[in-house]
Amino acid sequence: MIRVGILGYGNLGRGIECAVKNNSDMELKAVFTRRNPADVKILTEGVGVYHVDDILAHKDEIDVLILCGGSATDLPMQTPEYAKHFTVVDSFDTHARIPEHFANVDKNAKEGGNIAVISCGWDPGMFSLNRLYANAVLPQGNDYTFWGKGVSQGHSDAIRRVEGVKNGKQYTIPVEEALTAVRNGENPELTTRQKHLRECFVVAEEGADKVRIEQEIKNMPNYFADYDTIVHFITEEELQRDHAGIPHGGFVFRTGKTGWNQENSHVIEYSLKLDSNPEFTASVIAAYARAAVKMKEEGMSGCKTVFDIAPAYLTSLTGDEIRAHLL
Amino acid sequence: MIRVGILGYGNLGRGIECAVKNNSDMELKAVFTRRNPADVKILTEGVGVYHVDDILAHKDEIDVLILCGGSATDLPMQTPEYAKHFTVVDSFDTHARIPEHFANVDKNAKEGGNIAVISCGWDPGMFSLNRLYANAVLPQGNDYTFWGKGVSQGHSDAIRRVEGVKNGKQYTIPVEEALTAVRNGENPELTTRQKHLRECFVVAEEGADKVRIEQEIKNMPNYFADYDTIVHFITEEELQRDHAGIPHGGFVFRTGKTGWNQENSHVIEYSLKLDSNPEFTASVIAAYARAAVKMKEEGMSGCKTVFDIAPAYLTSLTGDEIRAHLL
Repeated sequence: MIRVGILGYGNLGRGIECAVKNNSDMELKAVFTRRNPADVKILTEGVGVYHVDDILAHKDEIDVLILCGGSATDLPMQTPEYAKHFTVVDSFDTHARIPEHFANVDKNAKEGGNIAVISCGWDPGMFSLNRLYANAVLPQGNDYTFWGKGVSQGHSDAIRRVEGVKNGKQYTIPVEEALTAVRNGENPELTTRQKHLRECFVVAEEGADKVRIEQEIKNMPNYFADYDTIVHFITEEELQRDHAGIPHGGFVFRTGKTGWNQENSHVIEYSLKLDSNPEFTASVIAAYARAAVKMKEEGMSGCKTVFDIAPAYLTSLTGDEIRAHLL
Repeated sequence: MIRVGILGYGNLGRGIECAVKNNSDMELKAVFTRRNPADVKILTEGVGVYHVDDILAHKDEIDVLILCGGSATDLPMQTPEYAKHFTVVDSFDTHARIPEHFANVDKNAKEGGNIAVISCGWDPGMFSLNRLYANAVLPQGNDYTFWGKGVSQGHSDAIRRVEGVKNGKQYTIPVEEALTAVRNGENPELTTRQKHLRECFVVAEEGADKVRIEQEIKNMPNYFADYDTIVHFITEEELQRDHAGIPHGGFVFRTGKTGWNQENSHVIEYSLKLDSNPEFTASVIAAYARAAVKMKEEGMSGCKTVFDIAPAYLTSLTGDEIRAHLL
């Protein structure tokens, strides 16, 4: 059994807990939190919740520690720190800072003799894999990534910061015409506006000026101004009833040419349709946690991304089994 | 530059030649054939065509030898034989015999200190990868693979063996309703007939009994009897004009559940739409040929499948580059 520890018990931490339950070769050993452990109720019976300050006392009980903090401030500190002591996996997703994060984590993981998998999930993660494989197979071609339909936490937060807004949720939606053009191999040049639209469900405070709120959202720089944005005003009850989930997904395409004169066209498409963004992210992390444990057992160390890990490490099946049944 | 040799100059061999042209870090060094080399005209200027009996004389000119023979009789002999002397890649696709082929090739590749990648292409190959990744990520779920729309060589051959048939081509087509049901997460149980239909374009010999030919095709055991089959009679001119290509493709799905009570559903879909089956297969092989050369340079040896090869080996980009641009 692979003994799993979780650091940080929010949506992703709970997702990891569920993923551990759904993987028969894994067991949850401990949850670590910055909160008062007595205040954190987890789903798994008989598993302890401890303060993060006590984490090193549990070092020998854990094969892999999953870091479930945020990319803005938690993971840049936590992953290098804990890679000294544990095999770790994180879901660091600030694309621009990945090289720096990789370097910091790699140094400490090597010093500690541990494997540290960073930027694990679906984007970065499964989408990255598909970009890499498709680029390697079709060197002459174009890449397209679309996100959605799904809830963007950052954009939902932005809506809620508008004066007069009580609550809100934002869906990122790929533009159907753009998907179709890419899928047909038309290799379109797409602007930001042509790729995605943004649909907002907003609960206004009583008496708030809805016209102003709508304009303020639609004209918000970076978040909405470059997109076609639809704003719906609904009640808090409707928001809770119809928009409680955290669905997401998206599409990765590569279209490319082969042949002596590049006369033949090909379309590679990978897509995800996810009821729960954090639970799917957690499921990817669980598979890479297994890989990390196996790689450490083989004596490897250092920082790894999904690019560095052979697919066979992800499964609990043997080489004979996967060759016989999945190849 | 990666120096490539090709053994067998049919559709796949020509595809490899094109793929080498489209990969800027590769160059074609030699083509080997069982035919009279003087009778084999290749596209690349200045590259020699040699009889296969002379292949070992060219050992030091070649970093990787691509074996482009058939799975029925060529590759079971060739891949183990040449893995003793070369880094090799094949596209062995007789699923049931892969374990045996792996064992034979592994032994000889290890003895020769070479890497041998077997069963490389899109199925087995890219489809296998997607089955493995998706199974690892969603351990609770169902797999579906659909093929087409595309030309099946085996079924086209079967048509041509029917008495009174002059020529013919068969397309395998996934049933749209089945695709939709899977994509919607309905987890259907599908019979052979419900998954694919078969469309045949047949050129009959003059005076042949078309009613009998159609019945004979539709009732042919293994090939057509378990499917809904459509037979069109056309002229040789129409066949040459409208059905000269070798398109193919297909879909790999995994639908699965996550959550404490498996309350959330997810759909992973990978699809290929290919103008040229052999050229795409060749493009996958070219990427794995690069991987094989890198692995051998790192001192590895033995038989490998797509499952055993970390994605980073496939690309000519550095680790820094792929982390910065593709992750």
